[in-house]
Formats: sequence, C-alpha cells, structure tokens
Amino acid sequence: MNKIINKSIKIAIVGATGLVGQSFLKVLEEFDLPIDEYKLFASKKNAGKIIKFLNKDYQINELTEKSFDEKFDFALFSAGSNISEKFAPIAASKNCIVIDNSSFWRMKKNIPLVIPQVNPQDLENHSNIISNPNCSTIQAACVLHPIHQKYKIKRIIFSTYQAVSGAGKSGYNDLKNGINSYVNNTEYKLEKFLYPIFNNCIPQIDDFLENNYTKEEQKMIDETKKILHEPNLAISATTVRVPVFNSHSESINIELSTEFKINDIKSLLDISPGVVVHDDPSKNKYPMAVDCSGKNEVFVGRIRRDFSIKNGLNLWVVSDNIRKGAATNAVEILAYLLTGNIYNKKTLLF
Amino acid sequence: MNKIINKSIKIAIVGATGLVGQSFLKVLEEFDLPIDEYKLFASKKNAGKIIKFLNKDYQINELTEKSFDEKFDFALFSAGSNISEKFAPIAASKNCIVIDNSSFWRMKKNIPLVIPQVNPQDLENHSNIISNPNCSTIQAACVLHPIHQKYKIKRIIFSTYQAVSGAGKSGYNDLKNGINSYVNNTEYKLEKFLYPIFNNCIPQIDDFLENNYTKEEQKMIDETKKILHEPNLAISATTVRVPVFNSHSESINIELSTEFKINDIKSLLDISPGVVVHDDPSKNKYPMAVDCSGKNEVFVGRIRRDFSIKNGLNLWVVSDNIRKGAATNAVEILAYLLTGNIYNKKTLLF
Repeated sequence: MNKIINKSIKIAIVGATGLVGQSFLKVLEEFDLPIDEYKLFASKKNAGKIIKFLNKDYQINELTEKSFDEKFDFALFSAGSNISEKFAPIAASKNCIVIDNSSFWRMKKNIPLVIPQVNPQDLENHSNIISNPNCSTIQAACVLHPIHQKYKIKRIIFSTYQAVSGAGKSGYNDLKNGINSYVNNTEYKLEKFLYPIFNNCIPQIDDFLENNYTKEEQKMIDETKKILHEPNLAISATTVRVPVFNSHSESINIELSTEFKINDIKSLLDISPGVVVHDDPSKNKYPMAVDCSGKNEVFVGRIRRDFSIKNGLNLWVVSDNIRKGAATNAVEILAYLLTGNIYNKKTLLF
Repeated sequence: MNKIINKSIKIAIVGATGLVGQSFLKVLEEFDLPIDEYKLFASKKNAGKIIKFLNKDYQINELTEKSFDEKFDFALFSAGSNISEKFAPIAASKNCIVIDNSSFWRMKKNIPLVIPQVNPQDLENHSNIISNPNCSTIQAACVLHPIHQKYKIKRIIFSTYQAVSGAGKSGYNDLKNGINSYVNNTEYKLEKFLYPIFNNCIPQIDDFLENNYTKEEQKMIDETKKILHEPNLAISATTVRVPVFNSHSESINIELSTEFKINDIKSLLDISPGVVVHDDPSKNKYPMAVDCSGKNEVFVGRIRRDFSIKNGLNLWVVSDNIRKGAATNAVEILAYLLTGNIYNKKTLLF
C-alpha cells in the first residue's frame, strides 16, 4: 500500500453526534494522524451544535446532497444504512474515499470489508467505498484469522454476549432507565428493544430472517467468510443481548483441521496484531467487559482444548464494540490508507 | 415405583433460610403433597427465627448430629457441600431418604442423580441418598433427553448465561449493591464474586480445575453424561455469569446422529414433560430470564438448524435456576417417591 504523502488531507465525519461518531473523534484524537482539516456532519436535528474536538470547537453541519461538493479526501460514515446507501455513492463519485460503518455495503461485490490486522490486502482495490465489518465479527475475526492461517479452521460456533451500546444511544438508555426504574421503583418506556434488557438476556439482535436466524447472526456468518476469504467455511451463530453497557463478549468454539498445542495457540495469538492474550486460570485472569471498555484491542482468554472432538478449541473473546468493533477499526483503515501502518499496540488489562 | 400410602409422612428441610431453602417451602406450598409434618433446620446463626410456611409459624432449628435421632421419612438438603457430606449419611443411616441439592454426592457411584422427567427409573435403587443435579445441567437435560431418545445426540456444546441467584444470597447482593452503587454513586464491597458482576460478564463459575475448565463446566459435562446414561457422550461447555438476578439462559449447539425435521423437534419437545416450547420468530417470541422466573418448567426457543454441519441444531433454553434448577426438581423427586407422579404442567409464557 502506497502511503499518501505531501498532501493536505481533509476528512468528513458523518454521524458525528452518535455513539460511534463520538468515538471516531476520541480515537482520532488519540491516533494523531497526518490530517489537516475536519468537517463534522449529522442530521438536521443536530446541525448547529458545537462539539469539542482536538481542543477546538467544531460546529455540526447538516448532511445534504451538496455536502460533498466540497472536496474531502476521506469520509467516516456512521449514521445508519439509509444514510450510507444514499450518501456514500455521492461522496465516492466526487473522489472521496468513504469508510462506512453501516451494514449496507458490506456484502456487496467489489466492496472491501476490512480489518487492517486481518485483510489489509483487500484495500488495494476499491471504488471509493470501504466497509467496516459488524462489531461482533471484527473481534472474532482478529482472533480467528491467525489461527486459521496456521491450523485451518473447519467449523466455528459463536455464542455472543452483546452490550447495549451496540444498539446506539437508545439501547444504552433502555438499560440505564431499567436500572433507575429498579432502584427508584418508577415506570419507564423502552426506546429501542422489544423487551426490557435490564435483568434479562434477549436472544434476538436485529430482525429475523426467513431461515429463523437473526440478521446479526447472519452477518457474523457471512462477514467472517468474506473477511477470511473462505466462502465455504462452516459457521453457526447465536447472538444475544445482555445487560452490559459496553463491550461484547463471545464464547467461540472452533474445530481445526490440524493438531495443535494449547501453548502454541497462546503464543500465536500473543504475537498477533491487535490481539491481547489475557489468560491465567491460576490467577483467575480472563478478559471481561468492564476491563476492555475504552481499549482498542481484542482480548482473548479461557483458551482451552474442547475435548469433545479432535482438534477442538474454546475461546472467550472480549472487545469494546464501539471502539475496535466500530470507530477504532474505521480509523485504523484510514490510518493504513494514510500511513501504511497497522495498529499493533498491546494494552495489558491488569 | 411404588407410591407410599397410608403412612404419616414427616419431612426435614435442611438449609431452610437460604435462597433454595426458601424456594423449597414455596414449591411445597404449591404442590400440595401428602405430607403430614415438617421440621425446618439451618445453621446456629439462624436458629430460633420464625418462618411463615403453609399458614403456620415454623421455628428454625439448629442442625446438629442429633437432629436425625428424630424419625424423618425424607430430608431436603440445600446447605452446601460440607453440610451434605457430614449430615446426609447420618440421616440416611437412620432410614431417612435424603434428596440433596449440593454437588457433593452427585458423581458418586450408586447415588442416583435424577430429573424425574428424564431418568425416574434411577430412583428404583438408592441407599437413602439421592442427588439433585446442577441447575445448568437440569434445564439442559430436560430438553436434550427427548431429542437424544429419538435422534441420538453425538455432540453438545454449551454456552451459558447464568443468573446471580445461582451463587446464593451473597451473589444476589453483589448485583443489587452494584446497581445501587451505579445509581447513587456509592462504594460497595463484593460479598461473593471475584469481580463486579453489575455491567459485566464473568466467564468463571466456581473454581478452575487442572484442565482449565471450571468446576461448573465440568459438572455440566459429567452430570449430563450420568443423567443420560451416556458416559462417552461428546460434550464441551463454557459457563458464564451475567448480570441477571434469576433464571439461567443457555445457548446449546448439538449434533444428532440421524436426520431430523425442525417441526418434528418442536412437536417432540412440545409433548415432553416439564418442557415448554416458546418459539415464534415471526412474533419475536423466545424464552427470556425475566419471563421464566417463578415458573417450574424449562422453556425452549430459537429452535433452528445449524447449517454448518449435517444434522446440526441450535437451541435457546431458559429456566428458573432456583426452581427447576434446584428446589422444584428436588420437590418433584420427593413427589415422585410419594405419589409416583411426574410433574407435567405446561405454563405458557404469554
């Protein structure tokens, strides 16, 4: 990948007031990329608001069909599928490279679906729209990719424990209001979920498809195959919302094609970019949502043999779904396009 | 099984002040069994307390080595493994049949480990100690047994979402205090768990074993094999504590030996004793912890084919871990020994 040099870089942030949009700004502040100018967009409702970013006041602009008449080098989108469907092609047609967090473009042909630590080579060819994968898929693929490279994965079974922040601010509010209602014995109205998420596990994320899988489950299946370039990989998934504000956890059971030693798996993951092994049963160490929130890496623990099958392996994978599952990954794609570097910091939990 | 008739029946409840003990009393009130006399026991700390039960005041007695000098026909134990290890043999030696909720006797030879809807025949031979299985195992086995009978299960992969009530009152307090601390911004001390369970998922239940599985995971594996009389069944498990007060949820992936139709699985479970099918994706219907708490059945939904393997099946199983997972199952064993009847009510969720 040729990095872009000696050029003034201008970036549009679309959906700057949402949970992921706010995280775009935080991660951009931390990453300190060679970017010269930013412009922040959101819906009409939020236009005019002032947001502090990089020690400056930024005014939110309303996104319109004319927004991309102004020349941008890149746009980070996180404003839902409808906005991405309509505005990403407009931006792309004006030579702005869109890094899109919605699900709309992900499974389309010729749209790269990229995790820089996994398939950066897919960024070589694009038509100015690049898709950021689903949050649950990103954290799983970061861990599964190095294992697949070395041992060839035959089958994957996902069971997820997903935080409410994945459903945006209204999902976050449903848990917060449920908690307050429990303590203060007051009524509240659900904003996002079909059922109370406080004190509950909801085995439905997004709508049901005809095959009785949810869209979230199908995304994990389809996107993992696309990212790993394995259209025939055997994958099943059950995705569940749990009463946790932020960071998704995943119980992942895999079957490998070749024999392995547990310590080799640990060593392999230990040197894998963006992955942190946090696994010591003798000290009760394993990744947990509360510890992973606010961090950019994918954390893995409970690495142990599944004795029920030859070459079986169990993993417990936790990551901040708003960061690595969305904003961080998008900014890492941007960073890779700008600098050619892949993020490989290893933040230890404790 | 011969039912006991024309005899005055006297029952001891050991651990009457704990979460499960309290539930023994509630379930006994509901079941209206032919029992003539009760005596309630707990530790010295709680002796002398008065508990309302069957519209009468019962005083709690301190459990001592002499408690079973008095003649009891049955004793329901739920006071931890140490108490069961010491006192169950004393009671048994005095011809009192112990139904024990602790894990201490479960895997011992010649100790029946029984779910009345699954393996009542194992009650034919006992030496006055009968074990109640682990909560996570009971709800899974109720659903897996009829499937196994018809299609022969080859392999099971469990991922659990377990409520804090499974860790007793102190586990319950950890979640409650965590919630209050969040709302009121106050400090609190954990009573039970190693880490905060509020706003978190903890992938450790009970201590770690040498194979890096937790005792809870190994219980699910070993007890399921014993209950289904399949010592070589391939099973793996990941057990996780979630911030839910009551009712365990389980994502269960199984591989069957023979072909099946999804509708046949649903019909089969629909007529299985103690199991309620609650499964209609078109109406967003599936069992959830908040709905199953306080009910005696095991609820199953999200019944769908796992397309990643031949004869693969995914299930979502929810049940009140203090009721069917502990107290209800124990009282059902007692009911079966007293009356020869197996509980087969079907409470619909909504």
